[in-house]
Amino acid sequence: MDKKLYFLLGIHNHQPVGNFAEVLEKALALAYRPFLEVMERHPKIKWSLHCSGILWDFFGDKHPEYLESIRQMHQRGQLELLSAGYYEPILPVIPENDRRGQILMLNEYLQKQFSARVRGGWLTERVWEPHLPKDLVLSGLEYTLVDDRHFVAAGFSPEELQGYYVTEDENYLVKIFPISQKLRYYIPFAPVDKVLEYFQERLAKNPSPVIALTMGDDGEKFGMWPKTHEHVYKDKWLDNFLTRLENTPWIETLTFSDYLDRFGPQGRVYLPTASYLEMTEWALPTKTQEIFEQVLNMFKEPHQEYIRRFLSGGFWRNFLTKYSEANQMHKKMLRVSQKVKKLESKKNKTEKDKKILQLARNHLYQGQCNCAYWHGVFGGLYLPHLRQGVYQNLLLAEKALAPGKGQWVRTDFNADGLDEYIWEDSQKNIYVSPARGGRILEIDGLDIAENFTNVLTRRPEAYHQKLRQMIKSPGSGEVQTIHEILRAKEENLDRYLHYDWYERNSLLDHFFHPDTTLEKFYRAEYGEQGDFVLEAYRAEISAGDLNLSRQGTVWQDSRPLKVVVEKRIIPGSPTIKFVYRITNCSETRLLTPFGSEFNLAVFSGEKSESPAIKEWVSGNLSFQSNLPLTLWVYPLETVSLSEDGFERTRQGTCFTFVSRLNLQPGEIFSLVLQLTWKKL
Amino acid sequence: MDKKLYFLLGIHNHQPVGNFAEVLEKALALAYRPFLEVMERHPKIKWSLHCSGILWDFFGDKHPEYLESIRQMHQRGQLELLSAGYYEPILPVIPENDRRGQILMLNEYLQKQFSARVRGGWLTERVWEPHLPKDLVLSGLEYTLVDDRHFVAAGFSPEELQGYYVTEDENYLVKIFPISQKLRYYIPFAPVDKVLEYFQERLAKNPSPVIALTMGDDGEKFGMWPKTHEHVYKDKWLDNFLTRLENTPWIETLTFSDYLDRFGPQGRVYLPTASYLEMTEWALPTKTQEIFEQVLNMFKEPHQEYIRRFLSGGFWRNFLTKYSEANQMHKKMLRVSQKVKKLESKKNKTEKDKKILQLARNHLYQGQCNCAYWHGVFGGLYLPHLRQGVYQNLLLAEKALAPGKGQWVRTDFNADGLDEYIWEDSQKNIYVSPARGGRILEIDGLDIAENFTNVLTRRPEAYHQKLRQMIKSPGSGEVQTIHEILRAKEENLDRYLHYDWYERNSLLDHFFHPDTTLEKFYRAEYGEQGDFVLEAYRAEISAGDLNLSRQGTVWQDSRPLKVVVEKRIIPGSPTIKFVYRITNCSETRLLTPFGSEFNLAVFSGEKSESPAIKEWVSGNLSFQSNLPLTLWVYPLETVSLSEDGFERTRQGTCFTFVSRLNLQPGEIFSLVLQLTWKKL
Repeated sequence: MDKKLYFLLGIHNHQPVGNFAEVLEKALALAYRPFLEVMERHPKIKWSLHCSGILWDFFGDKHPEYLESIRQMHQRGQLELLSAGYYEPILPVIPENDRRGQILMLNEYLQKQFSARVRGGWLTERVWEPHLPKDLVLSGLEYTLVDDRHFVAAGFSPEELQGYYVTEDENYLVKIFPISQKLRYYIPFAPVDKVLEYFQERLAKNPSPVIALTMGDDGEKFGMWPKTHEHVYKDKWLDNFLTRLENTPWIETLTFSDYLDRFGPQGRVYLPTASYLEMTEWALPTKTQEIFEQVLNMFKEPHQEYIRRFLSGGFWRNFLTKYSEANQMHKKMLRVSQKVKKLESKKNKTEKDKKILQLARNHLYQGQCNCAYWHGVFGGLYLPHLRQGVYQNLLLAEKALAPGKGQWVRTDFNADGLDEYIWEDSQKNIYVSPARGGRILEIDGLDIAENFTNVLTRRPEAYHQKLRQMIKSPGSGEVQTIHEILRAKEENLDRYLHYDWYERNSLLDHFFHPDTTLEKFYRAEYGEQGDFVLEAYRAEISAGDLNLSRQGTVWQDSRPLKVVVEKRIIPGSPTIKFVYRITNCSETRLLTPFGSEFNLAVFSGEKSESPAIKEWVSGNLSFQSNLPLTLWVYPLETVSLSEDGFERTRQGTCFTFVSRLNLQPGEIFSLVLQLTWKKL
Repeated sequence: MDKKLYFLLGIHNHQPVGNFAEVLEKALALAYRPFLEVMERHPKIKWSLHCSGILWDFFGDKHPEYLESIRQMHQRGQLELLSAGYYEPILPVIPENDRRGQILMLNEYLQKQFSARVRGGWLTERVWEPHLPKDLVLSGLEYTLVDDRHFVAAGFSPEELQGYYVTEDENYLVKIFPISQKLRYYIPFAPVDKVLEYFQERLAKNPSPVIALTMGDDGEKFGMWPKTHEHVYKDKWLDNFLTRLENTPWIETLTFSDYLDRFGPQGRVYLPTASYLEMTEWALPTKTQEIFEQVLNMFKEPHQEYIRRFLSGGFWRNFLTKYSEANQMHKKMLRVSQKVKKLESKKNKTEKDKKILQLARNHLYQGQCNCAYWHGVFGGLYLPHLRQGVYQNLLLAEKALAPGKGQWVRTDFNADGLDEYIWEDSQKNIYVSPARGGRILEIDGLDIAENFTNVLTRRPEAYHQKLRQMIKSPGSGEVQTIHEILRAKEENLDRYLHYDWYERNSLLDHFFHPDTTLEKFYRAEYGEQGDFVLEAYRAEISAGDLNLSRQGTVWQDSRPLKVVVEKRIIPGSPTIKFVYRITNCSETRLLTPFGSEFNLAVFSGEKSESPAIKEWVSGNLSFQSNLPLTLWVYPLETVSLSEDGFERTRQGTCFTFVSRLNLQPGEIFSLVLQLTWKKL
């Protein structure tokens, strides 16, 4: 039997919901279009393509000629089209119902647009969980692709992997192609010769004369990543590679389905929860991530592969543990999904119901786009416009559905084991966590589809250490890898590295050490004398208001004073009132600055201290108070990695209303704050 | 605030379905009863207990006084009772429907028998998958226990774990207590002082003055494991330990529910697929397992914990990849579960239907008992009576349900990506895999609830290397750990270490090298000249028979001869006929021994060669042939680890019917074999 290597090439193109239109245009111009043009010049090269629904919609809207090229290539059998969740969700973390709905939606699109009979699906970020087969099968999918890393975690060696394997859950059977990490690193970065050498080596080592290797990766690597456009197109890497494939008699390219129709599986496998290695690094708690990187570095030599193969990082879902903001978004998404499901299960739906359902479901699905829910090196959660894209869609879904009843509902909304109180009416939502400092987790203006509290806490990240090193010794480029392009877009970024000791929610109650200044507070290097930021408030509902109260301690001159903070939330529209009563229950005069902190998605305004203020306006938000107060304002900024290097990102603005309390034993301080929003 | 350590003790008692009655009696006498008696002497010690339904049934049947003691202890609030799947299944690998059904069944039992309001569940073998929360919640469970290892895999350090955590799937929220591995190793093996020192150390290091530590482990460790009965009861380890707890003012014991009612969670967590470390070792392919053990050994020093924490073994479900017999059992179980579900979903069930359903479901659930589905160091899959226990129950379930239609059904029954043919009628089942040598995977006598093909392939196991070392240098005890009691129950066990190159199914077609002897064949050290054992047969159904045929190659004097093997399976009861036709399609005279191999659950008979035989009988099984044949018989034996050391186990018997073919070009050899069974 003649020796033969089948090369199975799968390309995945995607841009996040909420991304800027110019970025989509750039991706098309730099990567998606030139890639297709090269493929058109090599009609014998079979390949497979997945585009997320976001891109299909964009092409349909703005570039129908691109769709037409795809259609032709598909029609002449050069190209197979892959499905997935329409808006590119991490499948295992969205509800079962939506998993199937999103995949069926893309299947339908591909059927309608290209008459494509879909058989395979791209797995978003290759986040695999072992109960997925059932959903994939019930959504009409027969196969998917995961990394060889997934198989390594099941005990395989990467160099024995080829063709495809079968897995199942409850006997729902799915075929799985292992993506070669080596090919993912080589293509398009290594010389064409090196790729061919690797093909030759694998074929030579293979026990049977036929082998099939899978390469599956992001299409953005072919032109959009820094410097790749030149390399791939101007320097003709891709053209040369494909020509070489065409001219090598022992190599044949096939679509995945062609291969399935011609060859049986290599065996059965069960894959544990897994993703690609870098993703499992990023999903670790930061401290553990730092240690894991050290450990990986200890065993990076080729001969240490037998150790490295057993090193395993974290689990995707823990992004929801690592970043409370990702969890808030995720649980909000689950809540909206529940609401959609409720309408879905309504019997005898009217035509209007069906329209509402379709609209709400579409927004829900968009709100499930994975990009804003996690953070690796490409921004993700750290990009406010991506978070906003998610929230806007979730709120538009909520707005389309039956409005909330305008009452406080008690529920463990965010799965922290403690109850929250949620107010929902046609104008707004308010999410309150009494158990965590009586804080506000979220305020949504439903009428304008905006989450005013959509900010981000300043956290240590494993790469901050590298930023500091880079600034200390600028020349040292030794930590560079494909995923770590260590440049800074701005000088001395390290002076923005301040870390918060609490999550950046709102209605947070501070008793500051008297020497606290705006600057110290901004740097999170000040003395907190009370225990009201993190500890539990009692909650009570009366006459439509939520009354929060805590008897806690304020440490004054090293002595604990008993203090009661009461705060009443009065949910009006477009004004929410916060009525404070602070009682000095001790035998000592209470002399302390008190501050009520709000962190809001406001993106203008410098660091400033305004004394004796009663009103403050920015864009569509304004604050009013009944007393003249000192207002501390500062931009909430983070330093994070993006594909272009380290960058500073404005996540919102911190507003703290400060009063210098001077209360006799038994005396009460009263304050009313109002937050108002309007349509701009 | 005073310093306080809460000690949460959970005990799990279980014996496999299919285990011998005397083993259950022994477990009660050595462990379960004395443990309870000690607890009765320490009424202030709160604890929690899970017994599998198998034990509850056994106690109810034979030892109602034991139930009575449990009832009293529970009534006075000393003891909390935990649920789980009634017959101790690995929850994630049984169908969703059965997961909930099994848990609800145990909940109901505990409610009825002890008026226990169940809140928590023991997680069988702590095999966790992230979609479990939904099933647990919908089965009425609020919490479960897993190993600290699970948390480590999510990025935690064991020494920061305490109390409980919350996790969720689709917002179904479950509370999880992390079991301390250290306590699991210390209790009851370390001196009581050492346990107390550890308590003190953890309390001292804890950031808050209150800490809760969970110990959860098998009750058999307290009396049933070698030497433990003396240590725990005669030497009073347990009494001393509990007295010490009672007398230590900063320690308090609580049931899990007591603790939940008094304390909030430590945080949120998402656990990847995980089990305890040893289980993840065992689930690896043998070669990888050997490397993993070496790597673990490289980093066993305490200061290497920061490396070791990232080392991760395999995934439970791959026992189904590692052992085809476990997969066969598992897929059979799924098939039976489907049948039960079909009756369940029937509308307007009659009283008879309901009775049948209850009977069948109960047997199905018993057939899901985990023990026979995997292999670590305690026998499990390697114990024929446990496999038999599973099959017997699955067959009794099938027997109770509507009989098969008596026709060949084509389906990928075992999820290998290739179709099998299954015959099912009221008397028997026959499972055939044309794609794998036209072999028979299973023959069930339904009337006697017996799987005649329930044997085990002889495979290399990671511990065989240790056996060989032990035999070479008998004194070297350095590899001993709690899980590795390296003794051999018999001398020179290594001479039974023969490894099969194919799985031990039936109707396997061999073309032997002429020098093949019974002994060589037994050792699997002979020449196979045909390609009919593993390669694909075509299948065709005609007149109720299954016709299998393959045109393959027989290598004779290094020359390939074209040969066609046809075999027809005629499914009678109680006789199944196998009609062979072998055609020499070459231009050369075919001179070769041909053998048809059956591996059956027959447990008597020595290695023997009987020439010119036309009938062979053993117990309830007999073979007849139309020609006098040479019959090679040998016992199929494995060497495996059990809790008492290395042991040899008879897994069944290999029967091979050998004819010396001497066929002219074009000449045909015909043979009829019959397999008959009867009730004994």
